[in-house]
Amino acid sequence: MPLSKNDIKYIKSLRLKKFRQKYDNFVVEGDKIVRELLQQRPEWVESVYALDEWVPTLSPVQTKIETVPRAQLSQASLLKTPNQAIAIVRQQRADWKKWPLSEQLSIYLEDLQDPGNLGTILRIADWFGIPNVLCSPQSVDLYNPKVIQASMGAFLRVHYAEATLSEIQELHPGLPVFATVMEGENVFQAELPANGLLAIGNEGSGLSDDALQRADRKISVPPARGAGAESLNAAIATGIICAVLKNKAGGQLS
Amino acid sequence: MPLSKNDIKYIKSLRLKKFRQKYDNFVVEGDKIVRELLQQRPEWVESVYALDEWVPTLSPVQTKIETVPRAQLSQASLLKTPNQAIAIVRQQRADWKKWPLSEQLSIYLEDLQDPGNLGTILRIADWFGIPNVLCSPQSVDLYNPKVIQASMGAFLRVHYAEATLSEIQELHPGLPVFATVMEGENVFQAELPANGLLAIGNEGSGLSDDALQRADRKISVPPARGAGAESLNAAIATGIICAVLKNKAGGQLS
Repeated sequence: MPLSKNDIKYIKSLRLKKFRQKYDNFVVEGDKIVRELLQQRPEWVESVYALDEWVPTLSPVQTKIETVPRAQLSQASLLKTPNQAIAIVRQQRADWKKWPLSEQLSIYLEDLQDPGNLGTILRIADWFGIPNVLCSPQSVDLYNPKVIQASMGAFLRVHYAEATLSEIQELHPGLPVFATVMEGENVFQAELPANGLLAIGNEGSGLSDDALQRADRKISVPPARGAGAESLNAAIATGIICAVLKNKAGGQLS
Repeated sequence: MPLSKNDIKYIKSLRLKKFRQKYDNFVVEGDKIVRELLQQRPEWVESVYALDEWVPTLSPVQTKIETVPRAQLSQASLLKTPNQAIAIVRQQRADWKKWPLSEQLSIYLEDLQDPGNLGTILRIADWFGIPNVLCSPQSVDLYNPKVIQASMGAFLRVHYAEATLSEIQELHPGLPVFATVMEGENVFQAELPANGLLAIGNEGSGLSDDALQRADRKISVPPARGAGAESLNAAIATGIICAVLKNKAGGQLS
């Protein structure tokens, strides 16, 4: 069944946060990621539009899949290179207050702005088995299409919620907070507990003074002597620190 | 002096590789990065267009800076959020055959496609004091504006050249090559020489069979047990491996 003009207009409107909030939906695009969505979280899916030839390669699922002509799928697409399938998905509201944060390593992002960075950090969490990513309310919206695409499906598995650091600390008073800073303890040498909250700040300004005061430890990825760069990208720093922390935790077990 | 229509057309044409090649120039935009350019590589600069109020904050340099109205700078800008200064810069041709690769850790990128990844990897190299980045001819163009902006000025300091792995090995027959793969030696545990060539493959398909055969070692960043993600972003994997290799090399010295 072809898409109506209004269907296309609706899908395209979801690139904007105000319409995502109004309809409580978001868009997932592409062969691989829609396939993962249907396999792992079919209950989240509202509708799927796909090319005729895409559908038969799917394993059977309950979701109704509407086949649409290629030209229409391209019109509805938010991507530069339109893909074979577009899903409209309901936004999820996770209750982070039930998460056992004191028994896990989690990530807290303060005012992260770049959607590519948030998507990449979700993918890092997914890779290293870090179950939770908490974001300050001023951070980029998880349901921004660039976040979803950059996450490569990690948004299906990593728990995500909005919370402030003070709310988290109120509920978990003893939770160790590791602040990522420019000049702190070398993450390779620091002896840190395996569980806690790794806090990463805004791309331009880093963590706020309030967050730094709330942190128990300040850690960093030291540069080479005489290095020219002023900073590492936020997602790169997160990746390195998660790799090192998880390697140390693994080492303790073996 | 205001920019002519042709000036604006010329600057905007440099977003495309064919015009960058035709004119042998590229564009650098933004307060901080143009300032670094003028301080560190004034000899590369052909011209600078800036807002009237931007100029006086500069330290004295030889380059002629033309002040232009804000509306014109916005018209010429390749960025979504136009900045205070745009520089037109001559492309540099480094002779990698003179680089002492056997005495350094260098990065080799095979067919990397994402400009953000290349820019971020230059920034990683800059941070960890890795002097050279070599790219296969099919990789994204260094002078793509998205590469330059994502590098945050690292393109001014890290040596960059195009070369194939076979050309590099022909000149340096004993150079250790470490291939980054999905399932290889755990980079945290592998004992690797401090100098050599760290090879990273294309975002989608990884390193080619030819590159894998040419490699002396295969290394990887191991995922958590049962992790959902299929892979790490190429720049994240590069960042983690460079951090670990540089930490080990530093440890040997102290």
